[in-house]
Amino acid sequence: MENTKFKAFLPHFYLVWSDDLLTQKELASFREFIDNQNWLSEEEQEKLLANINISTPPSRPQLNKWKAEIEEGLKNLPEAKDIFDISVWLSDNNPDIIAQEQAFTALETQLGLAGEEAISQFKTLGSSFTSVHHTVSSFDTAKLTQILDGDTADIIKKVKSVISRPEFAYETSTDIDVYRQRVFEWCKILADENLGNMAYPKAYGGGENIEDYFAIMETLSYHDLSLVIKFGVQFGLWGMSVMSLGTEKHYKKYLKDIGSLELPGCFAMTETNHGSNVKGIETTGTYNHNDGTFTINTPHPNAQKEYIGNAAKHGQMATVFAKLIIDGKDYGVNAFVVPLRDKKGKTVKGVTIGDCGHKMGLNGVDNGTIRFDNVVIPKEDMLNRFASVNDAGEFESPIPSDNRRFFTMLGTLVGGRIGIPRSALSASKSGLSIAIKYGDQRRQFGPEGGSEVPILNYRMHQRRLIPLLAKTYAMHFGLQYLTSRFLHRTEAEMQEIEALAAGMKSYVTWSARDILQECREACGGKGYLSENRIDALKNDTEIYTTFEGDNTVLMQLVAKSRLAEFRKSFENLDSMGMLNYVYEQTKIVIMQKNPMATRNTDEAHLLDDTFHKNAFEYREKVILASAAKRLKKLIDGGLDSYDAFNVAQHQMLDVAQAYLDRLMLEQFQQAVNAIEDEGVKTILTKLKQLFALSQIEENKGWYLEEGYMEAVKTKAIRKLVNQLCWEIRTDAVPLVEAFAIPDSCLAAPIAFL
Amino acid sequence: MENTKFKAFLPHFYLVWSDDLLTQKELASFREFIDNQNWLSEEEQEKLLANINISTPPSRPQLNKWKAEIEEGLKNLPEAKDIFDISVWLSDNNPDIIAQEQAFTALETQLGLAGEEAISQFKTLGSSFTSVHHTVSSFDTAKLTQILDGDTADIIKKVKSVISRPEFAYETSTDIDVYRQRVFEWCKILADENLGNMAYPKAYGGGENIEDYFAIMETLSYHDLSLVIKFGVQFGLWGMSVMSLGTEKHYKKYLKDIGSLELPGCFAMTETNHGSNVKGIETTGTYNHNDGTFTINTPHPNAQKEYIGNAAKHGQMATVFAKLIIDGKDYGVNAFVVPLRDKKGKTVKGVTIGDCGHKMGLNGVDNGTIRFDNVVIPKEDMLNRFASVNDAGEFESPIPSDNRRFFTMLGTLVGGRIGIPRSALSASKSGLSIAIKYGDQRRQFGPEGGSEVPILNYRMHQRRLIPLLAKTYAMHFGLQYLTSRFLHRTEAEMQEIEALAAGMKSYVTWSARDILQECREACGGKGYLSENRIDALKNDTEIYTTFEGDNTVLMQLVAKSRLAEFRKSFENLDSMGMLNYVYEQTKIVIMQKNPMATRNTDEAHLLDDTFHKNAFEYREKVILASAAKRLKKLIDGGLDSYDAFNVAQHQMLDVAQAYLDRLMLEQFQQAVNAIEDEGVKTILTKLKQLFALSQIEENKGWYLEEGYMEAVKTKAIRKLVNQLCWEIRTDAVPLVEAFAIPDSCLAAPIAFL
Repeated sequence: MENTKFKAFLPHFYLVWSDDLLTQKELASFREFIDNQNWLSEEEQEKLLANINISTPPSRPQLNKWKAEIEEGLKNLPEAKDIFDISVWLSDNNPDIIAQEQAFTALETQLGLAGEEAISQFKTLGSSFTSVHHTVSSFDTAKLTQILDGDTADIIKKVKSVISRPEFAYETSTDIDVYRQRVFEWCKILADENLGNMAYPKAYGGGENIEDYFAIMETLSYHDLSLVIKFGVQFGLWGMSVMSLGTEKHYKKYLKDIGSLELPGCFAMTETNHGSNVKGIETTGTYNHNDGTFTINTPHPNAQKEYIGNAAKHGQMATVFAKLIIDGKDYGVNAFVVPLRDKKGKTVKGVTIGDCGHKMGLNGVDNGTIRFDNVVIPKEDMLNRFASVNDAGEFESPIPSDNRRFFTMLGTLVGGRIGIPRSALSASKSGLSIAIKYGDQRRQFGPEGGSEVPILNYRMHQRRLIPLLAKTYAMHFGLQYLTSRFLHRTEAEMQEIEALAAGMKSYVTWSARDILQECREACGGKGYLSENRIDALKNDTEIYTTFEGDNTVLMQLVAKSRLAEFRKSFENLDSMGMLNYVYEQTKIVIMQKNPMATRNTDEAHLLDDTFHKNAFEYREKVILASAAKRLKKLIDGGLDSYDAFNVAQHQMLDVAQAYLDRLMLEQFQQAVNAIEDEGVKTILTKLKQLFALSQIEENKGWYLEEGYMEAVKTKAIRKLVNQLCWEIRTDAVPLVEAFAIPDSCLAAPIAFL
Repeated sequence: MENTKFKAFLPHFYLVWSDDLLTQKELASFREFIDNQNWLSEEEQEKLLANINISTPPSRPQLNKWKAEIEEGLKNLPEAKDIFDISVWLSDNNPDIIAQEQAFTALETQLGLAGEEAISQFKTLGSSFTSVHHTVSSFDTAKLTQILDGDTADIIKKVKSVISRPEFAYETSTDIDVYRQRVFEWCKILADENLGNMAYPKAYGGGENIEDYFAIMETLSYHDLSLVIKFGVQFGLWGMSVMSLGTEKHYKKYLKDIGSLELPGCFAMTETNHGSNVKGIETTGTYNHNDGTFTINTPHPNAQKEYIGNAAKHGQMATVFAKLIIDGKDYGVNAFVVPLRDKKGKTVKGVTIGDCGHKMGLNGVDNGTIRFDNVVIPKEDMLNRFASVNDAGEFESPIPSDNRRFFTMLGTLVGGRIGIPRSALSASKSGLSIAIKYGDQRRQFGPEGGSEVPILNYRMHQRRLIPLLAKTYAMHFGLQYLTSRFLHRTEAEMQEIEALAAGMKSYVTWSARDILQECREACGGKGYLSENRIDALKNDTEIYTTFEGDNTVLMQLVAKSRLAEFRKSFENLDSMGMLNYVYEQTKIVIMQKNPMATRNTDEAHLLDDTFHKNAFEYREKVILASAAKRLKKLIDGGLDSYDAFNVAQHQMLDVAQAYLDRLMLEQFQQAVNAIEDEGVKTILTKLKQLFALSQIEENKGWYLEEGYMEAVKTKAIRKLVNQLCWEIRTDAVPLVEAFAIPDSCLAAPIAFL
């Protein structure tokens, strides 16, 4: 056989024997192919077949020699488009080979070696645009930190300095007694630093600064989350319930000792049988006419208080929610201060405490159950801001409806639904800091012949983490807004703010769940080791979606409040208003729903604030209106409202979700607009755009269903999401560094490679 | 004031004072309204205003009296459409009131009390269709269990009886030493029962039954998952690596002792710096010409073996993957058996073991790190099935390419990628059993005046759990298929089966992650308590998405294998084939993409197998073809293939996802078609339809983008998903009971209320 003819087959031989993907089946079809080539003599065919005999594979040096020859060919023919070009060069332009282009192409196709891809494996590249991407900070992180911390920078700094002390080294014992004790000691230190009583009146030793209190919760959450919850139970739930539901006499009696942690206590509302439907609790507080006392009683085992923080170990008293009974008549849920243990920790007579035992997370918090067997308390220990029993033994309240009084009482406790999402936000920031810093350093795979590449350079890794980083920034500004609304609330705004807090609590805690899940997976095996802290972050925050109100239930409350607003504004419309409304709708259709807009893939348009705002608002409004219409139709059709709400429950969640998405975007946009520093503004603008577009992408099904966008536009958005992730990647590490989480808190070894 | 006129306002007074939603703002506008009514005298206005004075709220008995009067009205006027109708009745048809319909309607609108909904609160309903829904089994669960267990019913029964013994009571100690020891003892019992060596040749004491081995893994997974992984490391990874990569001499020397757990061992592949890119490991096995030994060495700390199960505590030997070096030349990754500890547990000289310490889950498994400091092993301890060093000290292998040899070696270990998803499937079944049985019993909220309702009657709760139940059934049949393909494999099918296993491993473990997350949340606070086992199920399976191949990386392998297949079949097309292809595409467009089809919302069509199959196949094909086109375009445009694959990485995951969705559906459909029992067939048909439709719903964005469905159709599908959930709910408990998980394994108190 002519050596030049034989050489034409070298690439095929090499690839068949070396490639990871080719199988015996391919070898067989290669053999069959050669058998069928009439332009080859029998002798030539045999010689070729000898090289693809499964029982006599080429030797290693033989393979290397082939490879060298092929690479030599490529060096001389860099413009080669496919294997056949190389074959021709190797055959020294043998005309027999050139004439067989069709046959060779067929063979290559059969072996899956057609096109330029097959030859790319011979090119020693070593570098590529994927591999050269790396961290380059485009802005001043300190300036961004300043913007994030805002007015509360001082208190944040103080808390950070406290939790960075050596005595705050993480507890690694898996013994829950040890862990609970450590958390209690930490709380004591914080109390001594006057951080626990920050929100209480100055008259009782407090700081009278609720804004700082929230900032403390948020900053503590860079550290152990059991500490945060224990802290929140003691100073928030227990202390604030006394403050909000009690009166002066209670403040005098308790607040100072609560703030100093001299008097550890609980917030005993939830019962085994009543969690979400807390209005249905069954514990009773019965008024005794003879001596003016109350008897607190648990009527049956499933009416015991459950999951009560601070109960299993440390609590000495509790705010207990119970139905007030006077002369056999039920006056609805009211609050009482009830002793649990004496100063030495001995349980009070009539009180039985259980231990919730080991939990998925938060094992530094001593959750327990409490049963009351006719425990008698003095009359003054009814928390009497909203209801009381007068000297004649009659019920008195400025709010006659039991329901309404109960919700008013709950309303005063809305602070918890601000503290929890702010804590979840910090946990998300910690998780992202760990995962992004690791992804920037961890290298795996790389171009042929080049070094391995940071995994954060891979598109999927970017897609997994960077939109979540954008969302975290959005939520930061959203929660700032919520806090500010709460701080400057008027009575008339309270219901709106309660719905806002319920919604943000759900939105942010669900996001934290997803963010921490993604961070765990993005860190692979390292993310599974407890030392890298994603374990604790994920498992501790896991219950955030349930406590302080189950998210699914809260989102329905949000939706109901939105529907009530909608119904009022809509049914309020007089004929002039109606005309305006119709005009508004028409304008939207003309401006936003015409083919020019629904197919607009212009990058400037897709990145534009107004487009984002319109799209979010449109979704919010249409979903709300259609849920309202649906409910009306169901009720008009004869369903009672309980059934109707159940039928539409799925839509109710959409109503709340769309409302919160819009709020988050709005706050993010406003915050970015207010930034003066160029560098910071530029990078946050990209993050804001990414947040907007990735939310739209997530809801593209809805936008397409509504005809608000066409496929060409949703596809363009997907591309832009990719592009923004790619661009932001170089700033991803600085963006998590701007959270300024103390190293001793972040702690994960993989964040410090 | 005429009493009748006054009475007309009773509903408004009552609702303003009692309603949870009305605020001070409404009170104010009510006052304003009355001030503006000229048809009322000043005296009348004053009397009315007195009843809405915030500082003198009505007494409780007053409120109750109002309520009674209104209810009386409703009883006499059941056809009342709104508050005004009641007002008229209460006013004894006072003509002054009747004349003011417009004014009253305006007031009601302003207060958000318009329409029938406002009066529904006075109707004492007590029952509703939501509240009467409950469990009614429509089929014979034992028959379904029989279908699920199939050929392996006997071994499943045996394993269940073993793990139900008292000595398998769950270990609750949080001390990992105690836990690890307990898990080791359990493994010993299983070994004594001849369950560990089930897959080994009979000649070495085994059962030679790989099908039963998988069934053992799956059934054990109803119990502690640390046990499953420890079992899998010992008998699967360690034993099977000897079996698959070694030869007769190794079987003789090791297999019996491995099967009896006399010789605990490890599978030491992963290194700190190389996990996913395992081809890049840096441990060396250097051949020593002088005495024919190998020296195993860890060149630097990050080349240590990491996460190695059985290493930290019990392992005495390990299959170590290392680059074979002969005369300074690297011959790629090979496997060696290396001693770690002597019989007494003392670490061998040159071996340094670290402990991975506490992990998110699987704390009964002793994962550790291993460093080798020039450990010398005899020549015979190279596992030499695929490569060896001959007497002359030369490398020999039937597979000359290092790459290909390595992937062939890995291919023999594909069993792990079958065992792991089958274990994840069992964990999902456990989680769903707990959550669904709890949801069936747990009551919360209810219709006005009625008892509370099982939470599984709520639409959202159904939507959260029941589609996941359907998916779990789909995956059961999908994994049966994978197992059967593996058991009956031919050499030519191996690559397809490897891709199939990689894909199913990812699909099922990701699903398990989502299922267990949802189960946790669906069980609320109870789901957070470790006693209810979702903690362990979620945290133990958390790493399933990472080990045995990171899911994101595996899905790319699947996609690459699909692309290779596609390229071959597509480029293979001769002109006749091309014509057929074009015809096929045209037929799809005519049959499936015409307006009759894309807008078809006929229920029979939407529930039809063929519609589902077509939709899944269409998605699979189009995504695959467009990814191929995209990659070609990128490479033709000058990108090297590494960059091109990175740019298209997102689409690669879609390719794999769509392929696996289609496979799962296909297997589910086939399995249901084969069922003879009417009752079982009927309920599984619904589950199958729900699986199909909820997957389509999840991908509706894509279908809309492609014009395969129009909005009217995707909306109809959403409704049908709701409806199917509602229908299946009554059978949900029997459907999890059919998994037949032993009570002692399920164990969660909330599953046995």
